[in-house]
Amino acid sequence: MTPAAPDPAPDAPDASVPPVIRVALLGAGTVGSEVLRLIREHNGDLAHRIGARLEVVGVAVRDIGRDRGPHVDPALLTTDAEGLVTRADLVVEVMGGIEPARSLILSAMESGASVVTANKALLAQDGTSLYEAADRHGVDLSFEAAVAGAIPLIRPIRESLAGDRIQRVMGIVNGTTNFVLDAMTRTGAEQAEVVARAQELGYAEADPTADVEGYDAAAKASILASLAFHTRVGLGDVHREGITAVTSDDIAAARRMGRTIKLLSIVERIVDGQEERVSARVYPALIPDSHPLASVSEAYNAVFVEAEAAGSLMFYGQGAGGTPTASAVLGDVVGVARLRVNGGYGPRESHYAELPIAGIGDLRTQFYLALTVEDRPGVLADVAGCLSSHGISISTIHQQPLTDGEDQGERAVIGIATHRSREQSMTVALDELSARPAVLSIDSVLRLEGE
Amino acid sequence: MTPAAPDPAPDAPDASVPPVIRVALLGAGTVGSEVLRLIREHNGDLAHRIGARLEVVGVAVRDIGRDRGPHVDPALLTTDAEGLVTRADLVVEVMGGIEPARSLILSAMESGASVVTANKALLAQDGTSLYEAADRHGVDLSFEAAVAGAIPLIRPIRESLAGDRIQRVMGIVNGTTNFVLDAMTRTGAEQAEVVARAQELGYAEADPTADVEGYDAAAKASILASLAFHTRVGLGDVHREGITAVTSDDIAAARRMGRTIKLLSIVERIVDGQEERVSARVYPALIPDSHPLASVSEAYNAVFVEAEAAGSLMFYGQGAGGTPTASAVLGDVVGVARLRVNGGYGPRESHYAELPIAGIGDLRTQFYLALTVEDRPGVLADVAGCLSSHGISISTIHQQPLTDGEDQGERAVIGIATHRSREQSMTVALDELSARPAVLSIDSVLRLEGE
Repeated sequence: MTPAAPDPAPDAPDASVPPVIRVALLGAGTVGSEVLRLIREHNGDLAHRIGARLEVVGVAVRDIGRDRGPHVDPALLTTDAEGLVTRADLVVEVMGGIEPARSLILSAMESGASVVTANKALLAQDGTSLYEAADRHGVDLSFEAAVAGAIPLIRPIRESLAGDRIQRVMGIVNGTTNFVLDAMTRTGAEQAEVVARAQELGYAEADPTADVEGYDAAAKASILASLAFHTRVGLGDVHREGITAVTSDDIAAARRMGRTIKLLSIVERIVDGQEERVSARVYPALIPDSHPLASVSEAYNAVFVEAEAAGSLMFYGQGAGGTPTASAVLGDVVGVARLRVNGGYGPRESHYAELPIAGIGDLRTQFYLALTVEDRPGVLADVAGCLSSHGISISTIHQQPLTDGEDQGERAVIGIATHRSREQSMTVALDELSARPAVLSIDSVLRLEGE
Repeated sequence: MTPAAPDPAPDAPDASVPPVIRVALLGAGTVGSEVLRLIREHNGDLAHRIGARLEVVGVAVRDIGRDRGPHVDPALLTTDAEGLVTRADLVVEVMGGIEPARSLILSAMESGASVVTANKALLAQDGTSLYEAADRHGVDLSFEAAVAGAIPLIRPIRESLAGDRIQRVMGIVNGTTNFVLDAMTRTGAEQAEVVARAQELGYAEADPTADVEGYDAAAKASILASLAFHTRVGLGDVHREGITAVTSDDIAAARRMGRTIKLLSIVERIVDGQEERVSARVYPALIPDSHPLASVSEAYNAVFVEAEAAGSLMFYGQGAGGTPTASAVLGDVVGVARLRVNGGYGPRESHYAELPIAGIGDLRTQFYLALTVEDRPGVLADVAGCLSSHGISISTIHQQPLTDGEDQGERAVIGIATHRSREQSMTVALDELSARPAVLSIDSVLRLEGE
């Protein structure tokens, strides 16, 4: 069968009665209030672009009493979120968290509403069931704002590169950790001090765990990997290391090596003969100062996408903040609303490939190691020998005696950069090294990326 | 009226009979043959992503005899393009040029086929009539590949930023001129020499006029301005200056100022009180070495998009070449084919804003001037006086005597950078200066951008 040209859309706007898209907002925080402001300020433009007028029918919040600034009309506030979603054609979920967001999105879809969400944690955990619900109810689910804020990334990966074969996505997708690492690099300060400052400035939450431990970056990696490789990649499939272990000594060592430490989210198609697997991982890595990602400062995000035909693409912009995130949300709102007017639906989740997930142990990466050892002849040779006995070859090695502390002169610090080695071999080698009496401590195990 | 959830798409694939999308290709050059290769190599993947199989029903070429490499099946070749387009659901136009491309696209649409094209010249000249034809016949017209090759730019501007308000798009969208300026900067060579080398390497056409005179960049600017500002901006609305006047002296002067010369396409929303206008222009400009566009080397493209809510976004990648361009074409093919399967249609051209076009004379820009003058007291003061009499204030000025040529010692070169000034005032001032006997020649008039 050959599909004919689509019929003129059944819902095409009737000149006499301009159609209306009823929008319900779940949450009125920094993003939600900006979404309301943009809808109010641009509704004339938006109506032209959509072919219908957006009408905000309600804003669900937990506490109606709280003042939410000039952009949130108190008359629209309601605590009855369940009731609200059944009165909308389009539900915008910007409340965050797993519940009640998840249940509300599902009941919205059940009652025929399309959904726009910025909720990466929810998508990473329950994406598949949400996509399936959207499919079942013939509605759309869009989430550009869930990854890299205002930066168009989901759409380019899902649509612009839909005719290509994505090999790798590598980027800085968490603004808080980038702010922290950037400040540590610029000032030489320790992490605790910088995190405290980031909290004062509003760049870090009171409880920074989700950011500094890499949970947020891992959620985004799972979303990106699922889209890029048409494979379900859950949060549990993402190898995650946060930045809490990164010290000012590591930053200084990176500087000496002409490198900068960044928290990277990397999703990759690993081709090994006929076999293909997907690797998804988040860890702090030393990248060359000349690498474009090295110059991404403060809370900015930047993402590299490597595809077979397109080659390397880079996307850069503001990855967080109420207004930039609201821009991405509203782009989705217009897109989904257009589908309501024009008929049809957007790309569905596709996981036809279902590639197996590669464990971190199977990867070949480059390492940076920092060890504190007894400062006596033979120790360095012994360390090097141990690594090579596990097939790990050293690219650079740097030893210097500890010049401070009570036992100065008795201890030295060794910094080692390796060539590509199997993660598993490194794990074993590190166990052996830590058992050596001459090895007093293994201070850092970081990766090198961006060669 | 409130549109209901879209009905299950009428053209949804029937499990028993997988649908087929008949694809006709117009042109089998570097892009066309790569499109054919990618369709053949990825058709399994593409079928999953589209929900239908792509079947190439023919490839229209002028000369069937010519060998077109391994990816073009000779059995598919035909010289009957007119007949071919009536047998397709989707026509991919990669032949370039105005005619017969234009007529073929129109007959394809008439017979109900959607069209994917990479033809920026045609879109810049006849875009409006093509959009209207697509509308009239209820088919889609996609053209991601027409601007910045593999870089997703059309879709982000049209869709991702559809809820935002774009203020400015500024970028390097012509690879040939960037290759030439980059080589001049690295080697200090004169332009003619570098262009010849670019031609050997295939970075420049035998007749480089379209690139070096800025016609290609202007066509892209008109497409970007039309999309970004929902206003019809024709080729004639774009102020165009090519790079032919850029000399090695200009490059050297830029270097001294810590700047790099790039050919920029700039489209901008000029807000003047209540009045809004659109400016679209292409010219070589001196940008600070620290500006991200300054480090865009060889034939790469990079584009900045500034939007009210999203802030600054940057897109970077390969702007030309058969394979990258084919990636963008195929992304559109998948998108248009999906609409065939799912029903509905993509965003139409919208020019509801119809903002007036700002003439170049009304703009306020910063200038770099190079003048050759008589080397005697008072001349520099006279030049500065003339500029200030037209409200043009100087930010830096640099005079050096000419140390070569027969009349050395008698002549000097003055390099001047100005603050923002009205283009019109500069035009008048330059007329006056050229009339001064002490001003022997006006060697360069370039802009400064990227402050």
